[in-house]
Amino acid sequence: MADPSAVWQDVERIRAQAPLIHNITNYVAMNLTANALLALGASPVMAHAPEEVDEMAGSSAALVLNIGTLSAPWVTAMLRAGNAARRMGIPIVLDPVGAGATRFRTETARRLLRDLRPAVLRGNASEILALATSEAGTKGVDSRHAPEAALEAARRLSAEFGGAVSVSGPVDIIVRGASVVRTANGHPLMPRVTGLGCVATALTGAFAAVNASPLAAAAHAMAVMGIAGEIAGEGAAGPASFEMRFLDALYNLKEEDIAARLKMESA
Amino acid sequence: MADPSAVWQDVERIRAQAPLIHNITNYVAMNLTANALLALGASPVMAHAPEEVDEMAGSSAALVLNIGTLSAPWVTAMLRAGNAARRMGIPIVLDPVGAGATRFRTETARRLLRDLRPAVLRGNASEILALATSEAGTKGVDSRHAPEAALEAARRLSAEFGGAVSVSGPVDIIVRGASVVRTANGHPLMPRVTGLGCVATALTGAFAAVNASPLAAAAHAMAVMGIAGEIAGEGAAGPASFEMRFLDALYNLKEEDIAARLKMESA
Amino acid sequence: MADPSAVWQDVERIRAQAPLIHNITNYVAMNLTANALLALGASPVMAHAPEEVDEMAGSSAALVLNIGTLSAPWVTAMLRAGNAARRMGIPIVLDPVGAGATRFRTETARRLLRDLRPAVLRGNASEILALATSEAGTKGVDSRHAPEAALEAARRLSAEFGGAVSVSGPVDIIVRGASVVRTANGHPLMPRVTGLGCVATALTGAFAAVNASPLAAAAHAMAVMGIAGEIAGEGAAGPASFEMRFLDALYNLKEEDIAARLKMESA
Repeated sequence: MADPSAVWQDVERIRAQAPLIHNITNYVAMNLTANALLALGASPVMAHAPEEVDEMAGSSAALVLNIGTLSAPWVTAMLRAGNAARRMGIPIVLDPVGAGATRFRTETARRLLRDLRPAVLRGNASEILALATSEAGTKGVDSRHAPEAALEAARRLSAEFGGAVSVSGPVDIIVRGASVVRTANGHPLMPRVTGLGCVATALTGAFAAVNASPLAAAAHAMAVMGIAGEIAGEGAAGPASFEMRFLDALYNLKEEDIAARLKMESA
Repeated sequence: MADPSAVWQDVERIRAQAPLIHNITNYVAMNLTANALLALGASPVMAHAPEEVDEMAGSSAALVLNIGTLSAPWVTAMLRAGNAARRMGIPIVLDPVGAGATRFRTETARRLLRDLRPAVLRGNASEILALATSEAGTKGVDSRHAPEAALEAARRLSAEFGGAVSVSGPVDIIVRGASVVRTANGHPLMPRVTGLGCVATALTGAFAAVNASPLAAAAHAMAVMGIAGEIAGEGAAGPASFEMRFLDALYNLKEEDIAARLKMESA
Repeated sequence: MADPSAVWQDVERIRAQAPLIHNITNYVAMNLTANALLALGASPVMAHAPEEVDEMAGSSAALVLNIGTLSAPWVTAMLRAGNAARRMGIPIVLDPVGAGATRFRTETARRLLRDLRPAVLRGNASEILALATSEAGTKGVDSRHAPEAALEAARRLSAEFGGAVSVSGPVDIIVRGASVVRTANGHPLMPRVTGLGCVATALTGAFAAVNASPLAAAAHAMAVMGIAGEIAGEGAAGPASFEMRFLDALYNLKEEDIAARLKMESA
């Protein structure tokens, strides 16, 4: 699993295939998410109307669902798109933004997980804990917990719905069944840029479009996020120049960047 | 038509008049669109509520409609705003984002075109082909065709609804009646920034607010887009620094930039 | 009031407490608003669903309401969140974006003001005039008036609903009861970046979360906006590099920046 050439192979596939990634995501992160997918080499589309989501999901290479600014009609659209994706065998990635902060978010995320059985569930530790236990306490959309605190919760959720669970933090933990992968790339400015968690989820969708292993796709996405973050952090003057440099770094990512920087361990 | 001073005259008018441009556009591009209009010198407003769209459109100098993240209520708002604009003689610019990717988008764009007869229809080649023929195949919101492939389709659409058709690509084609204008300014990073097509549409609205010729307004907008793109590309490290430099270049655009760089031909 | 150390104390409190700021705001400014709150040290969340707004507002340290892209369901959500905030004693900041441009905006802003009695009302001069008088004439979301023209209107509104009124412009005027504070920091590029007014409102929310005086919170927020703007302006090549530098400046803000630059006067 800790193989830089496997990560790079996925990046090259994304660049060569430009897979269409259908996103039903939040208003805050839509623009950044689309730009990150374009920078990586994928082709993003955002669509949420019930009249078109099944058609759009059905012609995509992956479906990304994100409840960051959810409302009842959008949840309906997510279920509809998700069911179309399932029928077509298209991988789904779910980001339970703010699960644990309100009952509506927790319950919606649990329903999407149960009904759609995504290939990857990607969230912060507080969100993953909120989905697996009755422990609430997400602070808005920010985590109050370190990823390791959510390891058992991630294992339980993975066993329940069958996909991988990707928990982001200073050290990311990606779990599926008995497998655990940790990636330790990244930069302290990353939590100071809104929507970078949502970007991690969308990039996970792009990797899932070219790699049939949910565990590998999720781990490769987190590694690429973290490596681009490290490159961006060198010379950034603050969170906004960091964000710009992050997107430029994704676009310019080279095999040797991954070879030199990858911090990934399987356990 | 290939007259740099005519392009510059429009830029000066926009800067002097700061025309109010009413946008009903997609969530992804709203922020960039507003910033591009401000950088050019126009005054953007975004409003979509049925309670206010006719009043807002009626007090604007141009109306920009963009179906990038459409839904039924927003289409209703577009029709309502468009009818108010027509009654007041305010030019409308339509961007059929993703026409050809789903039936909902194709049919909505056709209906807006038929009912509102915009001054300018601005899209990529796949979208224009999808509106004129039964040939589908837009990939999400990205084109699979070069602009020249859509020349006949653009001619047919222009003849049907009476306005100009502006097809963007490495060489943009702007058609109205028997007239064809080509602009060849631009930079390869432009398709890697989300929403730059939507920006082209919004800037076309600003030019239509100060130039009564739909063909000239559309061509001047594409020329200014491309020239700002060329300036931005010099020194950009990737798509995000390109985007920043593009907006700064729009703001700083000078007559001599247009004189030195304009690549526009009438046929 | 013109005490740099009092401004700095609030900044330090925000950085130490990372108060959760619940925003129901417009689509255009959501991303920038969230990034500005993060750069300052606060923890932003965006949520508008009726199923969750009272729960989210009730667990927040301040509620920011902004009608920039309002629609009837969002106004309902604002009232619901606002009532929850009032019950819990959580300060509310209201931005009446575009009041005076359409009847829907003027009437909605008046209703939110009357029903929710926010701690701070923050807008441009045309918006404040439109709320206090029958004089309309806001140009989309841009002001046609200087702040001083709205001084009496601000006084009347403050007397009516009891909170502070913060009128932004080259010299900002903040009024509550008989008190008037003026802040004169800022940069000419600020009105050329979309959503910076909305950012001023959101930062006012962050200051209101740590300072119980609505007048001081509003004045400190405008001072910090203006000082970050001045720092950003040094070396900016245009509005987009200005925006990036503004966020970086907020993140890097130091006590000596405020001490050296603060231009605040009480009258």
